[in-house]
Amino acid sequence: MDNASTSDPGTGGRRRTGGRAGNARRRGGGSFQQPDWRMIENRDAPTAPLDEAGIEAIHAGAMQVLEEVGVEFLNDEALALFRQAGCHVDGTNVRMGRDWVTEMVAQAPQSFTITPRNPARRIEVGGRTLLFGNVSSPPNYWDMTTGGKVPGTRERCARLLKLSQMFNCIHFIGGYPVEPVDIHPSVRHLDVLFDMLTLTDKVVHAYALGAERVEDVAEMVRIAGGLSEAAFRQTPRMFTNINSTSPLKHDQPMIDGCLRLIRRGQAAMVTPFTLAGAMAPVTMAGAVTLSIAEALSAIALFQYVVPGCPCVIGTFTSNVDMKSGAPAFGTPEYMRATQMTGQMARFYGLPLRSSGVCTANVPDGQAMWETCNSLWAAVQSGTHMVYHAAGWLEGGLIASPEKFVMDCEVLGMIQRYMEPEVVATGEAEIALSAIREVGSSGHYFGIEHTQARYETAFHQPIVSDWRNHEAWAVAGGHWTSERAHLLVLRLLEEYAPPPLDPAIREELASFVERRKREGGAPTDF
Amino acid sequence: MDNASTSDPGTGGRRRTGGRAGNARRRGGGSFQQPDWRMIENRDAPTAPLDEAGIEAIHAGAMQVLEEVGVEFLNDEALALFRQAGCHVDGTNVRMGRDWVTEMVAQAPQSFTITPRNPARRIEVGGRTLLFGNVSSPPNYWDMTTGGKVPGTRERCARLLKLSQMFNCIHFIGGYPVEPVDIHPSVRHLDVLFDMLTLTDKVVHAYALGAERVEDVAEMVRIAGGLSEAAFRQTPRMFTNINSTSPLKHDQPMIDGCLRLIRRGQAAMVTPFTLAGAMAPVTMAGAVTLSIAEALSAIALFQYVVPGCPCVIGTFTSNVDMKSGAPAFGTPEYMRATQMTGQMARFYGLPLRSSGVCTANVPDGQAMWETCNSLWAAVQSGTHMVYHAAGWLEGGLIASPEKFVMDCEVLGMIQRYMEPEVVATGEAEIALSAIREVGSSGHYFGIEHTQARYETAFHQPIVSDWRNHEAWAVAGGHWTSERAHLLVLRLLEEYAPPPLDPAIREELASFVERRKREGGAPTDF
Repeated sequence: MDNASTSDPGTGGRRRTGGRAGNARRRGGGSFQQPDWRMIENRDAPTAPLDEAGIEAIHAGAMQVLEEVGVEFLNDEALALFRQAGCHVDGTNVRMGRDWVTEMVAQAPQSFTITPRNPARRIEVGGRTLLFGNVSSPPNYWDMTTGGKVPGTRERCARLLKLSQMFNCIHFIGGYPVEPVDIHPSVRHLDVLFDMLTLTDKVVHAYALGAERVEDVAEMVRIAGGLSEAAFRQTPRMFTNINSTSPLKHDQPMIDGCLRLIRRGQAAMVTPFTLAGAMAPVTMAGAVTLSIAEALSAIALFQYVVPGCPCVIGTFTSNVDMKSGAPAFGTPEYMRATQMTGQMARFYGLPLRSSGVCTANVPDGQAMWETCNSLWAAVQSGTHMVYHAAGWLEGGLIASPEKFVMDCEVLGMIQRYMEPEVVATGEAEIALSAIREVGSSGHYFGIEHTQARYETAFHQPIVSDWRNHEAWAVAGGHWTSERAHLLVLRLLEEYAPPPLDPAIREELASFVERRKREGGAPTDF
Repeated sequence: MDNASTSDPGTGGRRRTGGRAGNARRRGGGSFQQPDWRMIENRDAPTAPLDEAGIEAIHAGAMQVLEEVGVEFLNDEALALFRQAGCHVDGTNVRMGRDWVTEMVAQAPQSFTITPRNPARRIEVGGRTLLFGNVSSPPNYWDMTTGGKVPGTRERCARLLKLSQMFNCIHFIGGYPVEPVDIHPSVRHLDVLFDMLTLTDKVVHAYALGAERVEDVAEMVRIAGGLSEAAFRQTPRMFTNINSTSPLKHDQPMIDGCLRLIRRGQAAMVTPFTLAGAMAPVTMAGAVTLSIAEALSAIALFQYVVPGCPCVIGTFTSNVDMKSGAPAFGTPEYMRATQMTGQMARFYGLPLRSSGVCTANVPDGQAMWETCNSLWAAVQSGTHMVYHAAGWLEGGLIASPEKFVMDCEVLGMIQRYMEPEVVATGEAEIALSAIREVGSSGHYFGIEHTQARYETAFHQPIVSDWRNHEAWAVAGGHWTSERAHLLVLRLLEEYAPPPLDPAIREELASFVERRKREGGAPTDF
């Protein structure tokens, strides 16, 4: 990992001053302290619920699905490409042999980088790296002020983008943190990408929702980076994420968007949404098998078109509530499906994406146990990119700033958990001389061994309240969501945008203006 | 595991009816469904932050502490025993050689059983078994009715005992779920144990707080089980748990209570409370080293006195908030310390105890992320007995019934997570014929593969609300803690005590009456 920064504003716009390693130092705006932005190294061995036979069974099942059942591709170009590759195309149904699929998928890199406009925020996708992204795409918004579910707007979207920039535990920006329904869909991508590229300096994403949107976003990312077309294509600068239409279907714009981006050297993530008991088998192994088949069919196509192009396999396998048929997230079944998919991703040598998810409607206890379950499953599965890691509620239908900062506390704890110093066992950490010094009386507060380390010894809470009940009550007796609300208000006041060359900002604005004059993108999708 | 029941009342007092395996069947009172009482098999490989050298470093450190610094034993009998064993006793300081310590500790069994008055509730401590116990020992109580922190009472204690009985995910009873300060300390153990042994039929515990209390409780457990003294001694029927007074000190009544119980064939658990930065080194490895030294010094003594007696090594290593010096629980440092101690427990061949803990003052988001962190750390560390797994708040100073049922939801999810069917990959689970049947259109709701499984396919929520925001709002818009409150009220109405021979109940009552007449236990501890 190369953290050498050309510009690393951190929270409050401070610059790096050198000194101790980023993982030990803490800084921040007035409201909280946090470690510098850096990628997390996942040091734990993945949790492996499947034995070798289990992995082989899911692989064999997925291959049989691809060979015998086939996948629908509602995209003429894809059908022609599959035909050209020798696959069996029957109408929109494509069947593909396991040898071809595994040969194609084997070309995908096990890791790659994505470099945003601020190169100090470059992310490495793969290996042992663990990356978190903000909540993406909810149509609705909830905060303690609205007190209810309200539609997303550009202003609410911008608020969540500012938080995404301020928290160093957020490594990349996924989709729109909330859908701004006050902007017409034809030009929505222009306004939100402008906000995204000016309010943040992290890796961004394009929705694969039609040629114009994808090409516009790619162009804006190129402009924001001050890049020539050649430089843009040279290495990934952005990514897209597509979902299949389970069971066993890929839609036109999703495949089109991926093909456009991989041909320009950018990254594609394929995330089937297989809900066990609804659009996938009720058994978790069956739902994972279906998901793997759907993802590999698209990734094989992309590797056929651009051998070696950066791809990520995603998982979004959960279960329904069998009483109502509604989706449930953060369940034990979700955790196991994520871990199982992690084993399959390593079997295929592909980087993995999973999510931070919950079913809860408000940022309460249920929200946090479901979110913790999904985030720890991400860690345990060896996930590289965690989508929706902060701010998600109601199965992805609501984005919430309070939930956002509450989740960032959990992400900060995961980051701290992975720091090698927490489990170091050198002579200084075994601390025999300190143990000798204190003996069986007195305490460790005042001794040199403690004093030399206490500032950075432990996770520094963001929104947790560690006071006793009496002190907490005197200070207002705020529950977590209320404290989170107050913190959000302070953070939004403290927010300062990351540096951006005024000429580039001007060029971005001109591009947006021109494309709006031209009518933006068609809205017949 | 032998679940053959003589009496398995479950929730609502229903009897077993045979049929499918307990892990698939669900029953319960009117308010929720749950699997039958059964022990959990932890199927995951433990998380291992330490490599071999790290384990060796902590072991070497602990041995050096025992050999060179020594541990204070404020118990004359223990000092005499150590002297007799050839250890170096200087006043109350005891230094012991690593060969002797490891030889003694190696005699402890890697697993053993504890059999309560209902033999169907027998627990196995060790191996891959994962067991949960209720919150123990908070002096205060909080619920949504009181709305604030109030003292524990016998009635509040009984409420939590009823919940402990009703939830099948609770395998054993730890200490008093809340300290009933309305009962005089001299007779408190008599009244609470009477409640514990009549309101529940699960394994119980005695506080090591003086000879009379320990012997009284042992006698009541013997009576409740309808056992002769010989039968009582034949196999463990109960246990005690002691804490050292860190750093490096064991108190008189704690050691005395353990010696009394192991001599009567019962189990002893030694749990140092080493708070990094306060009574232990600020480094987690140092705090674990100190904890290991303290625990092994007592366990070695117990093995010297009764070779092969059942012992459990406990961990309660966390960190302080370095701003205030207050303890913090459920932190990333706590998680790593628990995992590291798990590695050391396996190194010594001892069963492990850890806890479900949080710092939060109310059952909110923070409470649940801290509790989830600690419960997942218990799973990851290979913990066998999880103390305080349901109902704990404010660093153990508050017991809460709402928190109790919220925690039981998490425990139920962990239980479900460990069920082999969730990750099964047989032909029926890969579900190729179902995938073929549905193809790329339609859904899986109605097909036979789903219908045959849906009733038991997924975790059944207890207090989670999986409805969408609108349905949830119409139903009252209750946050998790409010739903938990309503559930507690319903459960306490539905509670039915487990069967108990009236003659035994009478004998217990007579014993309590007699011991009260005799004045109970001295209160000069």
